[in-house]
Amino acid sequence: MTQLDLNKLDKLAYLSIKKGVNIQPGQDLLITASIESLPLLRKLVDYAYKEGAGVVTPIFTDPHITKSRFQYATDQSFDRTQTWLYEGIKNAFKNNTARLAVVSEDPQLLSNFDSDKVSRASKATSLAYKPALEYISNFEINWNIISYPGKAWAKLVFPDLSDEEAVKKLGDAIFHASRIINDDPLKEWDDHNKKLKSKAKWMNEMNFESLLYKGPGTNLEVGLAVGHEWVGGSTNTKKGIPTFPNMPTEEIFTTPHCKKVNGTVRSTKPLSYQGSLIENIEVEFKNGKIIKMNASNGKDVFSKVLKTDEGASQLGEIALVPHSSPISQTGLVYYNTLYDENSSCHLAIGQCYSKCFKDKSLTKEQVIANGGNSSLIHIDWMIGSDKIDISGKDHNGNLIPVFKQGEWCN
Amino acid sequence: MTQLDLNKLDKLAYLSIKKGVNIQPGQDLLITASIESLPLLRKLVDYAYKEGAGVVTPIFTDPHITKSRFQYATDQSFDRTQTWLYEGIKNAFKNNTARLAVVSEDPQLLSNFDSDKVSRASKATSLAYKPALEYISNFEINWNIISYPGKAWAKLVFPDLSDEEAVKKLGDAIFHASRIINDDPLKEWDDHNKKLKSKAKWMNEMNFESLLYKGPGTNLEVGLAVGHEWVGGSTNTKKGIPTFPNMPTEEIFTTPHCKKVNGTVRSTKPLSYQGSLIENIEVEFKNGKIIKMNASNGKDVFSKVLKTDEGASQLGEIALVPHSSPISQTGLVYYNTLYDENSSCHLAIGQCYSKCFKDKSLTKEQVIANGGNSSLIHIDWMIGSDKIDISGKDHNGNLIPVFKQGEWCN
Repeated sequence: MTQLDLNKLDKLAYLSIKKGVNIQPGQDLLITASIESLPLLRKLVDYAYKEGAGVVTPIFTDPHITKSRFQYATDQSFDRTQTWLYEGIKNAFKNNTARLAVVSEDPQLLSNFDSDKVSRASKATSLAYKPALEYISNFEINWNIISYPGKAWAKLVFPDLSDEEAVKKLGDAIFHASRIINDDPLKEWDDHNKKLKSKAKWMNEMNFESLLYKGPGTNLEVGLAVGHEWVGGSTNTKKGIPTFPNMPTEEIFTTPHCKKVNGTVRSTKPLSYQGSLIENIEVEFKNGKIIKMNASNGKDVFSKVLKTDEGASQLGEIALVPHSSPISQTGLVYYNTLYDENSSCHLAIGQCYSKCFKDKSLTKEQVIANGGNSSLIHIDWMIGSDKIDISGKDHNGNLIPVFKQGEWCN
Repeated sequence: MTQLDLNKLDKLAYLSIKKGVNIQPGQDLLITASIESLPLLRKLVDYAYKEGAGVVTPIFTDPHITKSRFQYATDQSFDRTQTWLYEGIKNAFKNNTARLAVVSEDPQLLSNFDSDKVSRASKATSLAYKPALEYISNFEINWNIISYPGKAWAKLVFPDLSDEEAVKKLGDAIFHASRIINDDPLKEWDDHNKKLKSKAKWMNEMNFESLLYKGPGTNLEVGLAVGHEWVGGSTNTKKGIPTFPNMPTEEIFTTPHCKKVNGTVRSTKPLSYQGSLIENIEVEFKNGKIIKMNASNGKDVFSKVLKTDEGASQLGEIALVPHSSPISQTGLVYYNTLYDENSSCHLAIGQCYSKCFKDKSLTKEQVIANGGNSSLIHIDWMIGSDKIDISGKDHNGNLIPVFKQGEWCN
């Protein structure tokens, strides 16, 4: 009988608490997870308390319960959400509670339900969650996202395997991508972190005005925000705690100028958004705004997302990931942004990260004045492949090669 | 293979939503439950949405996670709690969210841990939860408690059976006690409700000044609060929604005068409190206050509870249950207050119910002036048996028989 490697699961839990969240003595912790990921969650809670956490609060989801709403609830209920819970979470973050999310859900969970209801429910939640999300995106607190191989997700990635084999195989892929390889994953992460930091350093020294992307279906110039900074790997929170937000992470990323994006771009991997799959996105930007959009699947969902608010049809993040990244090398589509974004160069529409500026003390208004985008949403979609070339345009208009056929030039 | 009766489980879920909570169209619902009770929880959520609920929020507990804290957390963490969550829940209730609790946990879950830590953690939670609890105890909202046969609980009640048989057997006992007997549990509950209402009506007509309890180890006079009212069965919330707080329920109950309790009383069933068992409690009251206390098991825990605050060593509720009640007739000890209190006459130390007064508009101060008790806690303990006699003393000092050998006299 094939089984999940419990020794590696234990290492993943320790890595997440110690290096990912980097829980501080006496600090409370909020964990969200699907009930299916209970074996990992129990280990996470054990390690959190062993490392001196204050109170650990798990909030569980269950796919049956999530679907039940879209199956049975009245139409008028879809503009409602648990405002009291999201306000509570904001208060928790305000009081320095750390945050850990375990991703294991079926990426297609909601794909058979009315996309209008799904997007209304999601908008209500985004709106209620925004004040809490700001504590996360501004790194007021330390946080971490990791994955657990849920059965439905595993079957989507490995449709030809049995349930058990698919879970085992996705588990192995998660462990590999999260660098749980030898006995000392903490050291692995330190070494990996150094490499990401050196790439970000070079991009910051170059201080490009814009990046030019060329590839099949893609001919795009993305202006960079005034005073932008490339970051990657670990982040220091505003309180100075080093934290790894994403595990795995292979990207370095920054804030584009949301009014200076022009041209066309084609996605290279499916985007899994709130239970729906959006495939083969083709988009045209003019002065930062998406003015044309198409998709072979999920066009309706993506179109609704773009209408969430003013900033939803503008860029908030761009990220560079070599095609040779371990995740990309598996050749798999994970239908999970945490994995697929780390296998490929990507863009994100929506909210920008204020930490991607050299000056960390910018006000919201200054961030916007420098070209930062503001929105309720932040959605990554993948545009990288072994056919993409990227050049940086410096302030004298010179073009310097950055990526060739999907790999770093320097 | 013995299995839980899923048809009856489905009926229990429907009964709870329709008659217990009595969810109103568009009303949100908060459910707390152990992960083990997921099969029941999924049915509850389905029925809630089918009956028109707004948003249903489940909050799950897990025994491993609950224990992890007491096993690994630092000493100073035990005075902490999730204040943000309890504040959030209070805000939910304020906005008319209904409440459903599923009880399935191991009554002895925490019995092997340091009782000092357990009681400190519990005090911190009680304090944070008090504002929310007031919405429940004052029936500002509709709420309901039901049970699910968790394995550890089932093994405690049926130690000689296999895991599966114990769960099946406890499930059957739960269904029977919750009157899931024939095809129409809703009608069963209507009939049962009428009987409870008629007993309460008689007690209210008699309008006793005090009750005198006599039995082995018990010789107690309990004064009743000024303007007290006996209630039982369904309750109308302040918004006028009929709700059954407890399923099962066999009791009629009222508010004693917390300064007019004198004599001795001996418990007749074990009390399961926050994971510890307290057995053979013997208590002496003087002018309302517990001045002497003993217990053969869990004395330490009970003694700490009494010190929670001023009101913790005074009575907040008395309840009458005939010894012939269906739960009592099983002859089992359930180690679960919801069951054991409904098999036996009982007392509760701690917070009184303001609804147990004829005048429903009393202020907090007026409730206290009339003899109502105030405390962070409310803990029921069982004093009934087939050997207990109860008389009512009227305002002329006449004694009128109420219970003889554990049964109603009238």
